[in-house]
Amino acid sequence: MESGPCSRPAEPRHCVSGRAGAGLAFPAFPLSAAGAEPGSRIGTVAAVLPAGGCGERMGVRTPKQFCRVLERPLISYTLQAMERVCWIKDIVVTVTGENMEAMRSIIQRYGHKRISLAEAGATRHRSIFNGLKALAEDQPGCELTRPEVVIIHDAVRPFVEEDILLRVVLAAKEHGAMISQIWLQNKLSSIPIEAAGAIRPLVSTVVSPSADGHLDHSLDRAKHRASEMPQAFHFDVIYEAYQKCSDFDLEFGTECLQLALKYCHRKAKLVEGTPDLWKVTYKQDLCAAEAMIKEKISQEICVVVNTKDEESVGHLLEEVLRNELNCIKVTSTVLDRTSGDIENFIDQCYSFICVNVVSSESRETRKLLSILEESSLPLLYPVVVVLVHCFDFTVVPLAQKMENLVWIRELAKEAKGRNVLLSGVLLNHSQDEQKLQESLVQSAAIIAALVKERNSALVGQLLVA
Amino acid sequence: MESGPCSRPAEPRHCVSGRAGAGLAFPAFPLSAAGAEPGSRIGTVAAVLPAGGCGERMGVRTPKQFCRVLERPLISYTLQAMERVCWIKDIVVTVTGENMEAMRSIIQRYGHKRISLAEAGATRHRSIFNGLKALAEDQPGCELTRPEVVIIHDAVRPFVEEDILLRVVLAAKEHGAMISQIWLQNKLSSIPIEAAGAIRPLVSTVVSPSADGHLDHSLDRAKHRASEMPQAFHFDVIYEAYQKCSDFDLEFGTECLQLALKYCHRKAKLVEGTPDLWKVTYKQDLCAAEAMIKEKISQEICVVVNTKDEESVGHLLEEVLRNELNCIKVTSTVLDRTSGDIENFIDQCYSFICVNVVSSESRETRKLLSILEESSLPLLYPVVVVLVHCFDFTVVPLAQKMENLVWIRELAKEAKGRNVLLSGVLLNHSQDEQKLQESLVQSAAIIAALVKERNSALVGQLLVA
Repeated sequence: MESGPCSRPAEPRHCVSGRAGAGLAFPAFPLSAAGAEPGSRIGTVAAVLPAGGCGERMGVRTPKQFCRVLERPLISYTLQAMERVCWIKDIVVTVTGENMEAMRSIIQRYGHKRISLAEAGATRHRSIFNGLKALAEDQPGCELTRPEVVIIHDAVRPFVEEDILLRVVLAAKEHGAMISQIWLQNKLSSIPIEAAGAIRPLVSTVVSPSADGHLDHSLDRAKHRASEMPQAFHFDVIYEAYQKCSDFDLEFGTECLQLALKYCHRKAKLVEGTPDLWKVTYKQDLCAAEAMIKEKISQEICVVVNTKDEESVGHLLEEVLRNELNCIKVTSTVLDRTSGDIENFIDQCYSFICVNVVSSESRETRKLLSILEESSLPLLYPVVVVLVHCFDFTVVPLAQKMENLVWIRELAKEAKGRNVLLSGVLLNHSQDEQKLQESLVQSAAIIAALVKERNSALVGQLLVA
Repeated sequence: MESGPCSRPAEPRHCVSGRAGAGLAFPAFPLSAAGAEPGSRIGTVAAVLPAGGCGERMGVRTPKQFCRVLERPLISYTLQAMERVCWIKDIVVTVTGENMEAMRSIIQRYGHKRISLAEAGATRHRSIFNGLKALAEDQPGCELTRPEVVIIHDAVRPFVEEDILLRVVLAAKEHGAMISQIWLQNKLSSIPIEAAGAIRPLVSTVVSPSADGHLDHSLDRAKHRASEMPQAFHFDVIYEAYQKCSDFDLEFGTECLQLALKYCHRKAKLVEGTPDLWKVTYKQDLCAAEAMIKEKISQEICVVVNTKDEESVGHLLEEVLRNELNCIKVTSTVLDRTSGDIENFIDQCYSFICVNVVSSESRETRKLLSILEESSLPLLYPVVVVLVHCFDFTVVPLAQKMENLVWIRELAKEAKGRNVLLSGVLLNHSQDEQKLQESLVQSAAIIAALVKERNSALVGQLLVA
């Protein structure tokens, strides 16, 4: 068991539950009604992520948790989702010996924090057990604090939100407390609940085959659910369950909630989860994960203009972008050359559209790129920067303008190495109202393509709208 | 019940099982060993596709079968997959009254053949029953032939292959025949098998919740399977089952195999399917479907060159494409100006890379585009055409060349309306070996981006490599 390096900032966003008015509040859960920050209600929480699988279902040699999505290993997205929840104190990832070094370099490269590594076992249950042992404080050399509650989550469910993590933790803990109270007051012989797990409706009917491969019976879809992750447990309960559990269970079992029930007589609360808890299992899931991540980081674009004039072409383009790309949040800022106003945006946004902000010289673009490169943005996702140059195509010949802007190509090559994707759009600022409108719409379409696809093969291109 | 229009060619590919040496042979199934074309062994086969769902799980207003993937409704892909199997005689699609007109126009627009429409019922089972009634020949005005075997498939499983369709049909039919023989010979009191369905391993553990939302028990994952589609039945068996079945079953049931067992005492053979049978259910599945379809149609590119000279830049680019885009089949042809050799390729390929084939004039490109547009290719998928112009950037200034090629922009606008995505790449045919190599690699990367993304916002652009 060893601690991961914690030297650099991991996450450009603030811890979710610490943000005032954060976009990811919990509408389904009356947090404010409870009158306290989650931290004060849930005690110490740690998480165990088994990541020892070999991904044979994916049909590729790389285990699926290490498959790359937008050039970053899938597991890094899951770690990012977990570590942005500040009330999770420690995150123990179990990986096989042969992947230990790769995992360590992922933690280093993407600056993940609060991560410890433990060796995976031969099965999922053995890996989880190893993760729990690392947290139990009863092993020699253990550096972690034994938590009150432990979350178990999969390394290949990168879209987990704080909401569901909190709901399973509170369900496990509050039901436990409630039942204990009833227990004390009424001496009811009820089974305590100190476990909870996310469930989803079944997508397909489940059937039970006979030994010779025929339908024995089918299950009533309405009476069954798919057990998903995350799950949460009182640490002592699940640790005891794993210590008591049989080799057969460790070898062939798949359900932690069942272990808590079987070995510690603790019932589990089932909590309805959202579709985004889905597990990346097959090749099509990896495609879906990439598409969903691209969509997520393209939800907000920042239009940088050089004037406050509402009639300027920059503001016109902003309007068209707003209409054409509905669902996308478009914010804008006037680039103040002294204060670097753009820095206010780099916390939330991975796409910057600069309209007429830079002249035909590269100096200002270099400044902009260095602000972005110094931020932690391109560490996690490719950052798109589009320089929009507006001029009347009948006044300045396109070819001449393109020659003047040839420096964009060179600059883009350098920036690409630092995960910033720079390209240019030439917008026809025509006196003819209709031609201007056409060019605005086409610019918006090109910008949408660049923002949504984030294809590094197109950096340095000057695209004509 | 009404027949769909059958006036135009539906499918540029030949019927799969009719193709000699087709890429989609059935390695898992000894077809040749059986010594006959499938058609002669399986009698008349029809299919029923329930498409009456409202897609509430997708979280969008459009029912998922009508959601657009690469601008085409999802159900059209499923119809395409079914109709390429020439031994399926009729395909009955059940749609709600309000979507009947939309469905009719999909059939018309994409030239689907052998499709009939029937009205969907309020539940999945009622819809399937309506589809079966349309095939039963016992209704007034029925124009279809009562089949021997009926396949039931979902409108939202577009990736079904002929292999699995054949396997479920033969499993239903051959097991039935085999059991009948044993029955006759030995008077065994066995239950006949005249049904079969595809299954897949469970991705998540299935749990049974108690009435108050706690875990009652979890199911052994190894002993259960997800029941997927397609399924196949002796028509008389499944039709009888639906006629006998209770209102409760019609309302709340989900498993056709179970109906055959319950009402007609026919056991069902369970056939292991492949991961691509997955059902488009949630938003992430739609993203995955689009990515998988894009990948599928980008598996083959045709490089069109103007010379047989192996040392030509066209052949060099072909080599680099082959190395850079592994997994992709690269074929090449020399464009013969009289015979239109390219027509040999338009049956199999949706991406054409023309290297130095066209001059700075638009005439030859127009000819190429008209060959493509007259084919049925762009009816089903966007066709990518990239014109690669190779010249030494130090001899002819880029700006001048771009000015000469400005006609590509106008031509691309026209072609886009007919679903052909035209753009240009300028390749630096430098005397400097290293510069040439760099430009070849960058051209390949740009071409890969254009072929894989098929983003119509980039048509008409001249991209510099």
